Amino acid sequence: MDFQKILSEIQQETEPLFGQGKAANYIPALSEVQPRQFGMAISTVEGERWSVGAADTRFSIQSISKVFALAAAFRIWGEQIWQRVGKEPSGNPFNSLVQLEYERGKPRNPFINAGALVICDQLLGKFPDLKTEMLDFVRKIARCNDINFNPEVVESEAKVGFTNAALANYLKSHGNLQHDVATVLDSYFHLCSLEMSCCELADAFLFFANRGKTPDGKQVLTLSQSKRLLAVMLTCGFYDEAGEFAFRVGLPGKSGVGGGIVAIIPGRMSVAVWSPEINRFGNSVLGMQALELFTTKTEISVF
Amino acid sequence: MDFQKILSEIQQETEPLFGQGKAANYIPALSEVQPRQFGMAISTVEGERWSVGAADTRFSIQSISKVFALAAAFRIWGEQIWQRVGKEPSGNPFNSLVQLEYERGKPRNPFINAGALVICDQLLGKFPDLKTEMLDFVRKIARCNDINFNPEVVESEAKVGFTNAALANYLKSHGNLQHDVATVLDSYFHLCSLEMSCCELADAFLFFANRGKTPDGKQVLTLSQSKRLLAVMLTCGFYDEAGEFAFRVGLPGKSGVGGGIVAIIPGRMSVAVWSPEINRFGNSVLGMQALELFTTKTEISVF
Amino acid sequence: MDFQKILSEIQQETEPLFGQGKAANYIPALSEVQPRQFGMAISTVEGERWSVGAADTRFSIQSISKVFALAAAFRIWGEQIWQRVGKEPSGNPFNSLVQLEYERGKPRNPFINAGALVICDQLLGKFPDLKTEMLDFVRKIARCNDINFNPEVVESEAKVGFTNAALANYLKSHGNLQHDVATVLDSYFHLCSLEMSCCELADAFLFFANRGKTPDGKQVLTLSQSKRLLAVMLTCGFYDEAGEFAFRVGLPGKSGVGGGIVAIIPGRMSVAVWSPEINRFGNSVLGMQALELFTTKTEISVF
Amino acid sequence: MDFQKILSEIQQETEPLFGQGKAANYIPALSEVQPRQFGMAISTVEGERWSVGAADTRFSIQSISKVFALAAAFRIWGEQIWQRVGKEPSGNPFNSLVQLEYERGKPRNPFINAGALVICDQLLGKFPDLKTEMLDFVRKIARCNDINFNPEVVESEAKVGFTNAALANYLKSHGNLQHDVATVLDSYFHLCSLEMSCCELADAFLFFANRGKTPDGKQVLTLSQSKRLLAVMLTCGFYDEAGEFAFRVGLPGKSGVGGGIVAIIPGRMSVAVWSPEINRFGNSVLGMQALELFTTKTEISVF
Repeated sequence: MDFQKILSEIQQETEPLFGQGKAANYIPALSEVQPRQFGMAISTVEGERWSVGAADTRFSIQSISKVFALAAAFRIWGEQIWQRVGKEPSGNPFNSLVQLEYERGKPRNPFINAGALVICDQLLGKFPDLKTEMLDFVRKIARCNDINFNPEVVESEAKVGFTNAALANYLKSHGNLQHDVATVLDSYFHLCSLEMSCCELADAFLFFANRGKTPDGKQVLTLSQSKRLLAVMLTCGFYDEAGEFAFRVGLPGKSGVGGGIVAIIPGRMSVAVWSPEINRFGNSVLGMQALELFTTKTEISVF
Repeated sequence: MDFQKILSEIQQETEPLFGQGKAANYIPALSEVQPRQFGMAISTVEGERWSVGAADTRFSIQSISKVFALAAAFRIWGEQIWQRVGKEPSGNPFNSLVQLEYERGKPRNPFINAGALVICDQLLGKFPDLKTEMLDFVRKIARCNDINFNPEVVESEAKVGFTNAALANYLKSHGNLQHDVATVLDSYFHLCSLEMSCCELADAFLFFANRGKTPDGKQVLTLSQSKRLLAVMLTCGFYDEAGEFAFRVGLPGKSGVGGGIVAIIPGRMSVAVWSPEINRFGNSVLGMQALELFTTKTEISVF
Repeated sequence: MDFQKILSEIQQETEPLFGQGKAANYIPALSEVQPRQFGMAISTVEGERWSVGAADTRFSIQSISKVFALAAAFRIWGEQIWQRVGKEPSGNPFNSLVQLEYERGKPRNPFINAGALVICDQLLGKFPDLKTEMLDFVRKIARCNDINFNPEVVESEAKVGFTNAALANYLKSHGNLQHDVATVLDSYFHLCSLEMSCCELADAFLFFANRGKTPDGKQVLTLSQSKRLLAVMLTCGFYDEAGEFAFRVGLPGKSGVGGGIVAIIPGRMSVAVWSPEINRFGNSVLGMQALELFTTKTEISVF
Repeated sequence: MDFQKILSEIQQETEPLFGQGKAANYIPALSEVQPRQFGMAISTVEGERWSVGAADTRFSIQSISKVFALAAAFRIWGEQIWQRVGKEPSGNPFNSLVQLEYERGKPRNPFINAGALVICDQLLGKFPDLKTEMLDFVRKIARCNDINFNPEVVESEAKVGFTNAALANYLKSHGNLQHDVATVLDSYFHLCSLEMSCCELADAFLFFANRGKTPDGKQVLTLSQSKRLLAVMLTCGFYDEAGEFAFRVGLPGKSGVGGGIVAIIPGRMSVAVWSPEINRFGNSVLGMQALELFTTKTEISVF
């Protein structure tokens, strides 16, 4: 298949959607990004790579980092991570406290903020210096040594992160955080502040398409573990729009409010797309459309 | 692959789970079934068929019938069905009224009871004699002329179906039912009362594995439509346990409180399993385990 | 105190509020009422009576009838009525299903619709011909033999009463209705359709101000029972605006969507007011204001 | 009436209830209190005082302090305080986050924790040194100069106060806190830590029974303001048991998890009772019973 041609078509066909969404603006670092940008990149298990547009521009990956944290925790603790966080779609916005109350402090899944905080707390049990450890982990799986946190984003998140502080305190009140609220939040904000490009994200997620193994042979997860996290991505990866994404695109993936989305075609490739304007659910408007066009044009989906 | 051997192993390995669940007993017709039964059947797009255990015993398919209704409605009305029913996982039990109130009478998806009632109502707009029509439809896609409703089940459901009557009335109060509450409920109860065996279910669902086409060439859904409904099955097909099923099994499917589950391996086959004892979410205990063993042993999943 | 003068002042001072609310229009019988009407009546335990405006015009008392049903049930069954209905303010609209689900079919109080349905069901256990019995009861305490149901209202309510049908079915599904859904609804709709004037309502409620005893010496409730129902009126009598009414008016009372409100000054008098335009909570705009003016001008309140 | 005799009877008749509740134990300072204690005190507007049992023993007044804060804020800011906090009963536990989310950060009333935090924040706008100011205020209305905070309680509350921290952060995220989360929480924890005896509490609350005026002539609130806060106490003063208290006791009041309850008989007296064992709603078991006996024996209630 001529993926380069397909990417170009997608870029052209999604362009008319500029303006339908709005870039996240709750912190300065996000609102300062030029909103009408678009980039897309593909990495295959055979080692091929294609890209279009601003595919090398780094952006704030935000919630996409939750997959890195989840993979790291699953790798270490295995199935026992599910004792403190569920794996069911939430049917509620990513930052809802309601469900947390009804379920007595056990977040429904690791991709809502509360769940990601619990994952960070679990990781802190193994890695007291979690920030360094995670940076290292991401650099390794992306094979790129200059990926970094954005300290301005961290600072901004901390300044306005009252909902996350509410969630962390609430988890703590239910005994579902072992470390200090401040430490957990700091780790979490750092992870959210990671900056990567589409090309780097496609590379970093490739092991999910490759039976849990990176191109250079590192077994990040077992095949079974990799499949299981792909299932969690498919059912929970798009906030309150997981069903819509599965319906339209038919691929497991994860989005972030920075406008990035990564999707996986098991056994074949990873696809990353970025465009800052997001819809009311927090998902990139052009990104969703680009991935729908991709699966339509290629007839590739998991279904 | 020697599917016959795999089915036999699965039968043996799931047997120890008898007693962990409990057969549905809210109506006499269901509670009278001998609970410790197990059957499993596979139909492939190449026309092969395997089965084990009580695969030819008919049972009450209950909510599995929601897929038939959805397919029929999607086939006729296309994407416009989503104006009155969502396609997001619900995060709540199948018969919850709560979500319906918060979302003002638009059910979250077609597989919770409220959603299925709306689908029936839509179908009634095309087929005033919906019961006959649906029986005909199911017989055709299963290529089996003696599939039937169980009138005792219909009667029992009607007698105890107060939650469903509550849901239907609530939908009506929000203007999301066009036909009489009684007519919609009667159609719905009839569909739930359909009796089919694992072999018949595997056959009837085969078109989902075959790009929307039955073995005898009838195009039930377009490829795109078929994929889309598979996505809805994966994210919403198992009540409040959709995430768990995707995680453990990794296949789109649908379960019923009669103990049946059908799962699809796109492009390859359909698998039906039946065992009456269900867990607290309404899903067959041995059925879930059987499908997990199937994907483990065969390494087949969509991920 | 010159109550006649006070009533006249109130009539004048509330007039500018016409147009701020909107008459209930969910059934024809209510929407056909001329909205800009106002009546108010006082009955004292000493036998004095004052009134102003359309105080002799009958209107649909709607939810005010819930007090009659509650008093009748409390009189017969005493404290055991609370096994099936609570006495806490609901914090939700009068017809919410949400709370009912969280509390497993036990309505929070007898003044939300679900609670009133349970009270009707309890009364049916004593009075198979509940409609006749209640009509008789109301006529007696109001000392007025031509108070009647409005059959058109009953018919209309039945035609559009899908939310109430949903509530009744849901109660039934939780085993909290012993009689037929249809019978309970029919009794309930009849009670809501009662037509009375302000003067009649003030008379009928006078026993609450008079230690449970009617002017002609009939002990409807014991003193303690009467006080207890006044407490329920104060905390639950105004749907989701009970706190606001207590705050502004400081009297126990009950409102109806027909625009009527009755309030009690324990030991002294009952006050009824009517004006069809209601606010978004279902309470009469001029009625609320009239009662606030009344307690301000007279400095009478329970506090 | 011989109030001394009534108090003695009450003490005797409530004693058998020891053991039915459980003293609050979420912080050491509360769990160390000897649970089987009972005290009760009455202060009348004529200046009479009666008491029984441990009526001079100081205890942690906890949520009773919310009334002091509310009175202080209402006194200063008048009706505008209601722009940021409601006055409706909540129908939910005192520390629920759910309602706060549905109502977008506006707490339902000033007696749930979230509402009290907003009141503290409003007071901080006038009194940067709120702790000193409030201590002064309470000392003045109670005419007692050695009432104090308990620093150990403050420290303990801060250590385990994750739910309150969650609430404060959530309010902040909705723009409904103007000051630092930490400052607001510190003020709030100090208020909760106030230690007073039944006699002191009865004195301090006497102005509510006396048209807003203290015995030494200080007009704390206008008559209208005083009545209005009494209404708020009646509808919201007992967490999720406000209806029950109004039903059984029929007086406005406020309870605290330290086991204290204060109730007001408008125009006549204030009554304070203390017994550390609380029920599952957070209200003193013997305290509730004592007040019910009081209104039964004296036939005094607002109804």
